[in-house]
Amino acid sequence: MPELRKDPVVGRWVVVSTERVRRPTDFPRRAEPPPAGPCAFCPGREHETPPEVLAYRDAPGAPDGPGWRVRVVPNKFPALRIEGELERRGRGIYDLMNGIGASEVVVDSPDHALDLDRLPVEAVAAVLAAYRDRIADLRRDERFRYVIVFKNHGAEAGATLSHPHSQLFATPVVPLTVADELHNARAYHGYKERCLFCDILRQELEERVRIVAEGEQVVAFAPFAARFPFETWLLPRRHAAGFERIQPHELADLAAVLRTVLRRLVQALGEQPYNFWLHSAPFDGTESPSYHWHFEVIPRLSRGAGLEWGSGMHVNPVPPEDAARILRDARD
Amino acid sequence: MPELRKDPVVGRWVVVSTERVRRPTDFPRRAEPPPAGPCAFCPGREHETPPEVLAYRDAPGAPDGPGWRVRVVPNKFPALRIEGELERRGRGIYDLMNGIGASEVVVDSPDHALDLDRLPVEAVAAVLAAYRDRIADLRRDERFRYVIVFKNHGAEAGATLSHPHSQLFATPVVPLTVADELHNARAYHGYKERCLFCDILRQELEERVRIVAEGEQVVAFAPFAARFPFETWLLPRRHAAGFERIQPHELADLAAVLRTVLRRLVQALGEQPYNFWLHSAPFDGTESPSYHWHFEVIPRLSRGAGLEWGSGMHVNPVPPEDAARILRDARD
Repeated sequence: MPELRKDPVVGRWVVVSTERVRRPTDFPRRAEPPPAGPCAFCPGREHETPPEVLAYRDAPGAPDGPGWRVRVVPNKFPALRIEGELERRGRGIYDLMNGIGASEVVVDSPDHALDLDRLPVEAVAAVLAAYRDRIADLRRDERFRYVIVFKNHGAEAGATLSHPHSQLFATPVVPLTVADELHNARAYHGYKERCLFCDILRQELEERVRIVAEGEQVVAFAPFAARFPFETWLLPRRHAAGFERIQPHELADLAAVLRTVLRRLVQALGEQPYNFWLHSAPFDGTESPSYHWHFEVIPRLSRGAGLEWGSGMHVNPVPPEDAARILRDARD
Repeated sequence: MPELRKDPVVGRWVVVSTERVRRPTDFPRRAEPPPAGPCAFCPGREHETPPEVLAYRDAPGAPDGPGWRVRVVPNKFPALRIEGELERRGRGIYDLMNGIGASEVVVDSPDHALDLDRLPVEAVAAVLAAYRDRIADLRRDERFRYVIVFKNHGAEAGATLSHPHSQLFATPVVPLTVADELHNARAYHGYKERCLFCDILRQELEERVRIVAEGEQVVAFAPFAARFPFETWLLPRRHAAGFERIQPHELADLAAVLRTVLRRLVQALGEQPYNFWLHSAPFDGTESPSYHWHFEVIPRLSRGAGLEWGSGMHVNPVPPEDAARILRDARD
């Protein structure tokens, strides 16, 4: 059973494997770029993954057979275990609990070679719907407090399989970055009686210099203090803390705007590794007046190094205003 | 003039370039591995760097000539500018100031090919003394509140030059990671009336399962909630918040323990890219009873990806107890 251990200095929970390592070569290292060509995520090879927990099919079909548009399966090598009790406990000044959680893979589409930017909008919407539906399902498990949703695309962005996919991580703790955001957003709301993110969106729509793409429901912009070149955030115009409550017309618009952003990034920068992730309210804050779900998209144009990891300080060589202009001018 | 911009969501200051970017190809991208062989940091080529701000020489010698053991020069391509006023200001809900700061490079030794693990202890001590002396000097500039000290070794760890070197970044703000540590350490001290780091050290020295190396003055251990495989922290036994007050006998011992840790990492893992960084109290907290300076050493065995960057959650496949045992058993 892995452990969730809390760093007492910054309050960060870390999943620590408890599988014994005798030699330094006993654990998985930086992977080679994955081979191209058909893989366990391709149609017809569904038996090579654990049984699916969700799939969208146009026609009725048997689970774990072909015909799906999006498919969600448990991670074959899960970092967390789904079965067991949390058993929160202390060890001297340290805090830990059992490494309970769900670790799932969203296979974005049946096509091994096409990433989201090259799929139809409806296919991107299906991926986002899978996030929504899995969060809605996982929150019924009372041990969990949060679902981390993220996508690594390209080996340099941490992907170990080339078939386009995203990942879900249901955890009994709120991850540090989200906890920090919640804390600050609550303080802002306490003082202003307004949502910080709604205020950001309002200012961006007034200044217009950092807007990347606009939908009826969702706005994409380069954040004022972007850490990374071409970093782009997607926010819904309507205040909403928990992503799982997204309405169908918002989901469709989010898919269109996300696809536009990804297409423009490819157009402007060429094919690049990238990450995106969802920040949504924890399960106990779905109706929060101070938090506001959003996606953050980060092309991996440079490596994080000692400065960023060690201090949290970043140096961004591209003014967000220029990045936004370049992306606005790029073809979809 | 670059800008320091504050992210209103998490309170992170980011250095944002204001040099206009017209095309996405206009800014520096992921660098190729640097060439081997003599470079601008090698003796005899001192004129290729900006004039030195510090150098240790055994015999009296002219500045910017050979004969030095450690040499500190301003960064030729500084992210921050040394001259000007901060001019803190707001822009709607956003906060910013001029990108004032010092960006310096510590050339660790005259030898292009030998990293710290292969230098004599005295040479490692000279590098650490250069950190101390530069911090002590930079803190006299009233615009600055902190000096970030870090080392990137190897292209995968973010180094763009192969000649072993470290970097200093004097900033008018306290970086986010250190601010978080200060905040939590202060809260712990407020409740317990003891230093959190002293308590951690006490427990590590009792449990002994995560100790990597011990000196008279400095202890190296794998932290309980290590984010990364073989992550190692170095703490002084004597409570001290500001590194710049380190005593000569502590500096000598720190050099010996740091060199031991780096040698054992090479012995156990082979030559690997790595980062280390110093966390020390800001200038206004040098005598703080709640903070305790320390070094964090991180071998770069895997890439940070969407999970880590997006959520602050980490999955560590190597139990710190195993990492510590493997490093204890490795030869120096």
